[in-house]
Amino acid sequence: AFYLAGMDGLEAAVHAMTTLATGGYSTSDQSIGHFDSVAIEVITITGMVAGGIPFVIYLKALRGQPGILISDDQIRTYIALLLLSTAAAAGWLWRVNGELPLTALRHASFAVVSTMTGTGFVSTDYMNWGAFPIGLIFFLTFVGGCAGSTACGIKVFRFQILYQATRSQIQRLWKPHTVIISHFNGRPIPEEIVASVLSFFFIFGTAFVLLTLGLNLVGLDFVTAISSSATALANVGPGLGPIVGPAGTFQSLPDAAKWLLIIGMLVGRLEVFTVAVLFSGGFWRR
Amino acid sequence: AFYLAGMDGLEAAVHAMTTLATGGYSTSDQSIGHFDSVAIEVITITGMVAGGIPFVIYLKALRGQPGILISDDQIRTYIALLLLSTAAAAGWLWRVNGELPLTALRHASFAVVSTMTGTGFVSTDYMNWGAFPIGLIFFLTFVGGCAGSTACGIKVFRFQILYQATRSQIQRLWKPHTVIISHFNGRPIPEEIVASVLSFFFIFGTAFVLLTLGLNLVGLDFVTAISSSATALANVGPGLGPIVGPAGTFQSLPDAAKWLLIIGMLVGRLEVFTVAVLFSGGFWRR
Repeated sequence: AFYLAGMDGLEAAVHAMTTLATGGYSTSDQSIGHFDSVAIEVITITGMVAGGIPFVIYLKALRGQPGILISDDQIRTYIALLLLSTAAAAGWLWRVNGELPLTALRHASFAVVSTMTGTGFVSTDYMNWGAFPIGLIFFLTFVGGCAGSTACGIKVFRFQILYQATRSQIQRLWKPHTVIISHFNGRPIPEEIVASVLSFFFIFGTAFVLLTLGLNLVGLDFVTAISSSATALANVGPGLGPIVGPAGTFQSLPDAAKWLLIIGMLVGRLEVFTVAVLFSGGFWRR
Repeated sequence: AFYLAGMDGLEAAVHAMTTLATGGYSTSDQSIGHFDSVAIEVITITGMVAGGIPFVIYLKALRGQPGILISDDQIRTYIALLLLSTAAAAGWLWRVNGELPLTALRHASFAVVSTMTGTGFVSTDYMNWGAFPIGLIFFLTFVGGCAGSTACGIKVFRFQILYQATRSQIQRLWKPHTVIISHFNGRPIPEEIVASVLSFFFIFGTAFVLLTLGLNLVGLDFVTAISSSATALANVGPGLGPIVGPAGTFQSLPDAAKWLLIIGMLVGRLEVFTVAVLFSGGFWRR
C-alpha cells in the first residue's frame, strides 16, 4: 500500500514494519511529514490503529469469530478514546486555529493515533497548535494501545480495571451491604488483577517521577524533562518543547540524560514489573 | 512567636492562623518573603510541619503517649520525605547555584515544607532556581501532609498503602503460595482500604487530567495549566511559570480558568470522593 501511494521500495518496506510494530522509525528526519501525502497518512493511521489491537483478537477473528473485533471491551474503549481525542483536537484546529475541517481532521487524527499507540511518527509540528492539543498529546502519551499488542504505555485495559474498581468502590459507599462484582468482557475481575494493576500504576508513577527528577538533575528544563520522561517510559518517541518535541531530536541532550532515558525506555518496554522483581531481594535469594 | 520575631500584632495573628491551618494567606503580596527574616521563616516552617501532623496524634501524645510522635508510621515517612526533599533541593542550591550552605538550607527547607504541607507561603522566587528544584516542587505539590491534619493533597498514608500493596504484589510474583499481609502502624491493612486508596488515585488522576485539559481549552499554556491544576486540586497555592508561579498571581487568568480552578479547589478539599459520590446515580435514587 505504501509503495502504491508513492514510496519507493525501501521506504515502503521500512515504514510497513515500523507502522505495524508501532515503532515509529522513518527513513526521513521529518518522519511521515516528509511525504506530505494524504494517502500515505491514511495508510499509516490504519496500520498504527491495527498495531494497537491485541494479536490474539485477530487470531480469534480469523478462526470464525469476526464479531470479537467490535465486541471486545478493550478494543471498544481503545477506539472510543482515539475517536474522542481526534474529535477534540480536530475541533480545536478548526475552531481556534481556523484550519479547514478536513485538514484539521487529517492532522489531528495522525497526531492522536501516532501518540496513543506509541508509534511516534510525526506528520506536522504540533507544538505550534496551541495549548489544548499539546496538553492532550501529553496525556495520550501515557495511555498506550491494547494489552497484547505491539503498543506500549500503560495500556487501555489497566485504565478500564481501575475505572471498574473505582466504580464498585463508590457503589459500596452508598450501599455498604451489597456484594458488587466488576466485570470485564463479561467475566468477573479477580482481586489479583486489581492488585496487579494497582501495583503497575504505583511503579510506573514512581519511575516517572524519578526519571523526570533525574533528567532535571542533569539540567533538562521542566517541559523537556517531564515530556521526555513520559515519552521514554511509554516508548512513544517525541516529547514536547523545542528540544525533544516533534520538530526536534534527542541528539543535543547531555550523555547523562541519554543514559537515563535508555533505562527509562527499557523499564517501560519490559512492562515495569519485570524490572521491579529484579530489584526485589527475594528474587535473588530464592 | 511571630510577634516577638518582629511582626506587628495583626501580621502575627494572621500568619499564626494561616500557618497552623496550612492555609497560606499573608498580609503581604510577597508572602513571608516580605519580612526577609530567618527567625520568622524558622517559626513558619515549624508551624507548617506541625500543621501537617494528624490532630489525634497530639491528643494521644498529651494523654501520656508522647512516643507516638516518633513511632507513627505516617509521621516518620512525612518527616523523612521533608528531610530528603530539603536535602536534595539545598544540595542543588549549594553545588549548582553556588549559594552558601546555610542560605541554601534556609530557602530549600522553606519551599519544600510550604509546598508539601500545602501551605503555599513563598519566601523567595524558586522559578529562578533551575531545573531540579522546580521539578521537585512540582511533584511535592501532589504529596500533601498526613491524613487527619489540616494539610491537603493526596496525603502521605495513601502513598504508603500503595507502596505496601505493591510490595506484597511483587513478593507474590516469586512466592505465589505465600500468604502476604501488609502492615501499617503494626496492624494489617484491610482489603477495603487498598481498594479505597486505589479509587482515590484514579479519581484524583482523572480530575487532574480533566482540569488541566479544561485550562488548556480556555487558553492556558502547558506549564501554567498543568501546575495550576496540580496546585488547585492539592490546595497548595502557587503554581509554576511566570504567570501563576511563586512571583506571580492568578489574577490575570481568564474568568473561565478561575471558575475551573474554583471547582478544582473544592474537589480537592472535599477529598474528591465526596464529590464522586454526588455524581453517582445511586446516591440520588436511594
